[in-house]
Order: sequence, then structure tokens, then C-alpha cells
Amino acid sequence: MRITSTMAETRGLYSAAPVGLVPTLGFLHEGHVALLEAARAECGTVAMTVFVNPLQFNETSDLARYPRNLERDVELASAAGVDIVFAPAVDEMFPLPIATEVSVAPLAQRMEGVHRPGHFAGVATVVVKLLAGLRPDRAYFGKKDAQQLAIIRRMVLDLSIPTTIVPHPTVRERDGLALSSRNVFLSESDRVSALALSRGLMAMSDAAEAGERSARALEEIVLDTMAAAAGVRVEYVELASARDVARLDVVDEHCFLAVAARVGEVRLIDNVHLEVTPDGVAADRGILLDRPSVLYSQADDV
Amino acid sequence: MRITSTMAETRGLYSAAPVGLVPTLGFLHEGHVALLEAARAECGTVAMTVFVNPLQFNETSDLARYPRNLERDVELASAAGVDIVFAPAVDEMFPLPIATEVSVAPLAQRMEGVHRPGHFAGVATVVVKLLAGLRPDRAYFGKKDAQQLAIIRRMVLDLSIPTTIVPHPTVRERDGLALSSRNVFLSESDRVSALALSRGLMAMSDAAEAGERSARALEEIVLDTMAAAAGVRVEYVELASARDVARLDVVDEHCFLAVAARVGEVRLIDNVHLEVTPDGVAADRGILLDRPSVLYSQADDV
Repeated sequence: MRITSTMAETRGLYSAAPVGLVPTLGFLHEGHVALLEAARAECGTVAMTVFVNPLQFNETSDLARYPRNLERDVELASAAGVDIVFAPAVDEMFPLPIATEVSVAPLAQRMEGVHRPGHFAGVATVVVKLLAGLRPDRAYFGKKDAQQLAIIRRMVLDLSIPTTIVPHPTVRERDGLALSSRNVFLSESDRVSALALSRGLMAMSDAAEAGERSARALEEIVLDTMAAAAGVRVEYVELASARDVARLDVVDEHCFLAVAARVGEVRLIDNVHLEVTPDGVAADRGILLDRPSVLYSQADDV
Repeated sequence: MRITSTMAETRGLYSAAPVGLVPTLGFLHEGHVALLEAARAECGTVAMTVFVNPLQFNETSDLARYPRNLERDVELASAAGVDIVFAPAVDEMFPLPIATEVSVAPLAQRMEGVHRPGHFAGVATVVVKLLAGLRPDRAYFGKKDAQQLAIIRRMVLDLSIPTTIVPHPTVRERDGLALSSRNVFLSESDRVSALALSRGLMAMSDAAEAGERSARALEEIVLDTMAAAAGVRVEYVELASARDVARLDVVDEHCFLAVAARVGEVRLIDNVHLEVTPDGVAADRGILLDRPSVLYSQADDV
């Protein structure tokens, strides 16, 4: 495995097609590893990027305390069979203050867009940069960031970027908590409270698969579960089209029901994607780990 | 030569590297032909695009009356040795209403950005789409659109697009008028008035090469020339850095002095680039045709 710091150097190391890219902010957990393994199974060359993109942090404090551990990330990537880890310095990515912004405004108005102004433009800009500069055939993104995934898919279509975007199910702890690098900041009691998010989404998924199509009824199942949990401050619970993030009143197309909440000092998001099939609605509840996540330095014993 | 309507089909026809791209709005004149010839001299494969990009027209009437003649464009491209003409339908470029916008706001505030709101975001978005989808090694742009050129260069740097942007000098009629597809709309008398733009810029260039470094003094040379011409309504005369389009008070880096004016019903722009060399300032006055332009259907006899 090679570690690179420039895009040209990275492109020069591609040995076999197709080239798969897994963009990350580093501090890998089993969710990232699942993306790496999916890429490894499907691609001749697998590149992973580790870059804490300052453009997508609307709160400076959040950027400063974002967890980092490149050495461990490199070990995990190597174990997953990654060929190249592209880990650029901020100066390499932005030799000048960036003057260009890519926005997908119609899809970024709701949900995360309300609570994290500028976040999606920061994501879109750096993802275009990675796709333009690294030219992967396939790029892997987790469904946990559902609105981000919708935005990236639309952006790639709009800009004719010849990269296939491959979504991957959310990876969860055995008790349902969606993996997130931010989970390390949860106290033991907040960790328990945080389960309300996934518990609500799983109850909602059961109802949807049992025939409930009303967005409001499904949202209320999640809201009620979260209201009953101590220390959980709900930011939103909303159903949205996976195609254009528009509000849906009923589940009649591919969509996701997403939730954001603050638990203690930590902001968490989670969602379940709902697909409409001839046999009814199918919920993608994600993948439960069969053992506790071992990649949280502070959460190993939870 | 092949005519294509999709990007994938176009990429599939590349036969030899490097691939050179000449993006145009069609209705070619000798300025475009000069770009094609430069690309032909430097590239193994030359592709030209003909697409009247609706995103960059801030006035619907301007879009509707933009001159078009694909048949003639194809003949001229063929004569210039172009390998592929990519001439997509609007539906091919925008199968869905485009939700993504690329902006280079800090470089788009002045000059054309003031007078054509949204224009540069429309240009930037479609140029990213062409560069991402067609993946040329080199792309050719005329210096006549000086602010556009500065914006595209910054955008390509910011987004790590691995395409070299190649600028080409402005091509002028024997009497100095910069070639533009819009020149066909000039009446005979307006055609005479329009010469004030280039005459002012040439006088300015002489002064700059003779040692005048003051932006204000150079701008006033152009303004005075234009004020003396009948029927010329000046929109702006401004010196700007070629790097970031910032206002310069003195010529101490690569810059351009640009002018925009309405002559009759026609909006014209022109400029001269000034480079600072160890020997003083060098003005790029452009290239004078040695015979009248023959590519203006309504202007052949001017």
C-alpha cells in the first residue's frame, strides 16, 4: 500500500481498472471499513482519501475537535486491502483560498441544510474536487448521510462526472446505534439515550413495512420514541425523497426518514431508506455488527 | 470527422493523446478558427463543442436571438482538422432541470458580473460539466473574454481539474474590431462607432508600453476615445488583475484593461492584456486578420 499527498501522484499509481474511491474524513470505524471492503470486492484499484475538509464544518469548534488518527487509519486501510491512501495537507488541497463553490441548493434547503448552513456546499465542492482530480470509476458513500448521498448523486448527474456513485447501508452497533466518528464523545449515559434514534427508526420501519404510508404517522412514531428518552433534543424528524430531498406526504417513491438530535453535547444523525417495491415498502435498516465495534478508542467498553 | 451528441460517445472516439477541447457557442468566426488551429497544432485529438448554454444567458431575448448555424460550423471545423464535433441537444445536457451550480463569486463581482447577473455561474457550471464529462487534456479559450478566462483558470485550479487551460489572443478585423458572433447585429454606422473600443485600447496599450502605469490614467485614455464616438454607451472601463480580477491601481502584475459598451442595440466587450516583464509592460493587442472576416453573414461587406 502507498500513501500519497498529491492527486497527480495518486493517479499515477492506478494499476488496474476499475478504480474505486472511498472518500473519508479519517478516524475510521467499521462503517468506513465496510465501504473499503465493498470497493475491494468490486474494483481493480482501491484508493481511500483521508481529509478533514474544513469547508464542510460550519462550526470552527467542531472542526478543531474532529477526531484524527492517520496512523490507525492507514493500518485499517491496509488490512482492508486498500492500494492507495491519499492523505493531503490542507495546503495541498487549497494552495490558494478557494474561490470556487459547488452548490446543489434545491436539495440542501431542508434538514441538515437548515441546521448546518454551508455544510453541503462544502461537501459538494470537495467531492467534485476529489472526483475531478482523482477520476475514479466508482465512489463509495454511506447511506447514513442520506441527504449528502442524494446531493452527490444529483451533482454527479448534473455535472456529467463519469463516476458511478455506490451507496452502502448504514453500519450499526449490535444495539442499533449508527456508527459515527462522533460517538466517541458520548458519555456512558448519553450513549444509552442515543439509542432512541435507532429504536424509533426501527419501529418506524416495522410500521412502514406493515403498510403505514403516511409521512406524518411514520414521523410521529420516531418522535414519540425520542420524546420518551432523557437528554435527547430533537432537531428534526422528516421524510424526504431520495431523488430530490423534497417533502413527501406519503411513501410512494424511494425516500428516507431522517432524524437529527443532540444528545448531551453530541449532534447525531440517523435514517432509514424506504424503497417502494411491487410487494410493498422495504426498509433498509442497515447492517448490525455481530460484535461490539472495536474502533472507538473511548467506546470500546460500551 | 464525427458529429456526436453524448459525452460517452465523444470520449469513445478519442484516438490519440493529448485531447484538446474547444468549447464554443457555435456560429464560428475566425476567432474560433484560430482556437481550433491552435488545438490542432498541439493535440492528437481535437474536439469542438457547439452548445448555446442557456445557463449563461441572463436575458432570455439574448438567448433566443443568439445566432446559430451548425451546418456551417461543422464545415469550418472540418476544414480546420477537427476530429469530433460534440453538438448536444439541451435535453441531452440537462435531462433534469439542473440543481447544481458552480460559482467563482470572488472573481465574478466586477465588470461583466455587475452587468450580467448569473452569467459567470452559468459559464462555470457548464464548463465544469464539459471538462468533467469530456476529460480533455487541454482546453482552449480566447483572451477576448478576459474575466471568463480568469474565472475558468481559477476554477480549474480550485477543483483540481486535470485540464490545462490554454489562452489564445483576441482575433481582430483589419481595422481592429474584435471578432464576436454579435457583430452581425451591428448596423453599418454602428459598425463604425464600435471601432472606438479597440481604438481606445490600442492607444492605451501604446501608453502602457511607453511607461504609463497608473490604472486611472490608462482607463481615461480609453474613456476619452469612447466619449468622442457617437452612439457608444460605456458600461465600464476597468483594469483588473488577471489572477483574481481584483482592482489594480497600478500595472504591477499580469492584468487586463477591459471595456464594455452598448453600440446601438448590441453589447460589445473588448480588452487588452498587459504583462509586466523585466523590460517593461508588454501589451497583447491580439491578432489582426490580414483580410476582412468572411464568416459574418451580414457583415461581409463592412
